[in-house]
Amino acid sequence: MNTNTTITAPRGFQAGTAACGIKESGDLDVGLVVADTSCAAAGVFTTNRFCGAPIVVGREHLQNGKLRAIVVNSGCSNVATGRRGIADARKTCRIVADILGIHETQVLPASTGMIGKFLPMDKIEDGIREAVASLSDAPQAGQDFARAIMTTDLKIKQACERVKINRTTVTVAGCCKGSGMIAPNMATMLAYITTDAGLNQRRLRALLLAAADKTFNRVTVDECESTSDMVVAMASGMATDTSGGRAESYFAGALQAVCESLSYQIVRDGEGATRVLEVIVKGARSVREAHQAARAIAVSPLVKTAVHGGDPNWGRIIQALGQTEVAYKPDSVVVMLGKTVLFRKGAPAPGLSESKLEKLMDRKHVAITVDLNAGAASDRVLTCDLSRDYVKINADYRT
Amino acid sequence: MNTNTTITAPRGFQAGTAACGIKESGDLDVGLVVADTSCAAAGVFTTNRFCGAPIVVGREHLQNGKLRAIVVNSGCSNVATGRRGIADARKTCRIVADILGIHETQVLPASTGMIGKFLPMDKIEDGIREAVASLSDAPQAGQDFARAIMTTDLKIKQACERVKINRTTVTVAGCCKGSGMIAPNMATMLAYITTDAGLNQRRLRALLLAAADKTFNRVTVDECESTSDMVVAMASGMATDTSGGRAESYFAGALQAVCESLSYQIVRDGEGATRVLEVIVKGARSVREAHQAARAIAVSPLVKTAVHGGDPNWGRIIQALGQTEVAYKPDSVVVMLGKTVLFRKGAPAPGLSESKLEKLMDRKHVAITVDLNAGAASDRVLTCDLSRDYVKINADYRT
Repeated sequence: MNTNTTITAPRGFQAGTAACGIKESGDLDVGLVVADTSCAAAGVFTTNRFCGAPIVVGREHLQNGKLRAIVVNSGCSNVATGRRGIADARKTCRIVADILGIHETQVLPASTGMIGKFLPMDKIEDGIREAVASLSDAPQAGQDFARAIMTTDLKIKQACERVKINRTTVTVAGCCKGSGMIAPNMATMLAYITTDAGLNQRRLRALLLAAADKTFNRVTVDECESTSDMVVAMASGMATDTSGGRAESYFAGALQAVCESLSYQIVRDGEGATRVLEVIVKGARSVREAHQAARAIAVSPLVKTAVHGGDPNWGRIIQALGQTEVAYKPDSVVVMLGKTVLFRKGAPAPGLSESKLEKLMDRKHVAITVDLNAGAASDRVLTCDLSRDYVKINADYRT
Repeated sequence: MNTNTTITAPRGFQAGTAACGIKESGDLDVGLVVADTSCAAAGVFTTNRFCGAPIVVGREHLQNGKLRAIVVNSGCSNVATGRRGIADARKTCRIVADILGIHETQVLPASTGMIGKFLPMDKIEDGIREAVASLSDAPQAGQDFARAIMTTDLKIKQACERVKINRTTVTVAGCCKGSGMIAPNMATMLAYITTDAGLNQRRLRALLLAAADKTFNRVTVDECESTSDMVVAMASGMATDTSGGRAESYFAGALQAVCESLSYQIVRDGEGATRVLEVIVKGARSVREAHQAARAIAVSPLVKTAVHGGDPNWGRIIQALGQTEVAYKPDSVVVMLGKTVLFRKGAPAPGLSESKLEKLMDRKHVAITVDLNAGAASDRVLTCDLSRDYVKINADYRT
């Protein structure tokens, strides 16, 4: 049995890393994923209009739905760097391509870290050479890659699912980074998924979009959409063909489970986070409205600080909901903490005991459910609490 | 010369206060403003759909544009309290009206504090009796009123303007409370303005709406729109008639200056605030878009924490801007800190010195200007930094 649960677990993938000095700490800051063969590939990218140079170049390189390698550096995002930034992103791909003997458009570039700084290309070039030299399909190589892409993350974020399809084990593995500037919209953070499933780029893209929309696009740490977000998947096809029918739906399930796990890990490791907050809105007129209402509650700094303090100050939930324009009658709204009703018929639920509420709030995972009683649609947003440490981390990020 | 600069400064107004025990601290928690005669009155109220019971009753009582008294309690907001809350707000007005011998619809009620708690009506009744007994037009009475409406505010917020109109001194005075849950939309917090100018309720309302829109509606502390916001103005007419022409525009100028001062005081005293952040957006296609862009930057927790840390991390400004849908070309956008250009032509401005930037950020009032170069409209939003103390205050509000 294969015990590798990193992105090198699916057949046909190796990873390599290096510490080239972009991070002053001396931590790993260059990571490579290289496939043995040309892979079907798909990606979703940030919709932020000041997107980074690697996003521009990466979109170009993904146009034909094929990739051989991904090169990532952390410590400098190559965002807001104009033409020079674009040229640097292209050059990064060229360095990788030249060493591996592939075409530069088969390489996807990515950068994460400070905005408004140029890439130190000498260091990058040295780092890539070192990373190529270390390429391996060992678990440690996958683990190191997941570490090399981190910035303010405290924890490595990885997920792996194995499913039997056509009597063959198909593996879907992923890793991601992201802790602050997290409010994905159509794409999110840096997340890389490898699989040995066999399917074409068109289907891979459709399944990735669907999975990302239900997972990465439903988490927020600070409602700040990054300029560098991306989720990229590569399928080597080395296990079995998973196109169409039941095989495809098994694969889609595994893909979504990996995305779900990674996105949960992101909020759990949100900057300064001590608790996960899950906001479920049901009884909405449409999924869009359910999402809008859930998001309004999940992004409220007053709700997030109350969750942080373990303070069952539920008035802030209805305050946040009251700021939205989704359809509901205030008197028909029901608010629950876990399974306990807090608010209904426009007033506090009778017999609420403060000490019971405090216990319900004092959990690592706090679930708030709001029933709008206005329709049949529902949605869910995951976030984390807002702590002094979020402020501390972000007030002194540069220094 | 009259040295009173409180809401009892304009001719025809008295204030009274009491500490009736709603606040456990024993601080003043009931405040009354009573006019000698029926006043032209106007108000703007929160657009939050879970608005408090006093907002519902206050809107009713303001329908005919006349008021004699305002009664405010702090410590309990009477929000999310259903029918009982509405009945309590009406009863509060009735108690005041009965003692003063006026009609209850001439009294405007207001409450601020915890959401989801019922008003302690016995205490309120005692408090009102005591407040009536203390009615006075002395400066101390006005000052005490401004203190009685405070919740998490650290500072009393008052403003006063005097203008000569028709060779008579016309006084406009105001006070307000508000420190958290501040993101006014068509109205804001609790703000009370008295004046001895003479104008009808229709004009007073038009001028108040215009002034509030340019001032209170342009500040945000945490982008959480309160359920209890209101700005109410009463004009006794005891100084001189200020209707129409130059007299009205002088009065309008004084009214706006009072609103401007009060709203600035709110962000300066924002929960946990150590600096004021002014975001100016120019070159927009419309004022609406300028406002949208300025607001996106002003509400970003990443921008606000950077300002807190005195960290010139300007990438976060363009990140926030990139999340909006207003019209601009990324390469045409210019970002300035004070008068120093940070970003232009899609890249960092050449020759930026880190130490100079740090000096520009290390101010009590930090001004960010963004030129979208897409039109001729501009707007401005005021906010404060996001500090550990904001989290501390809001994680433990109940206890």
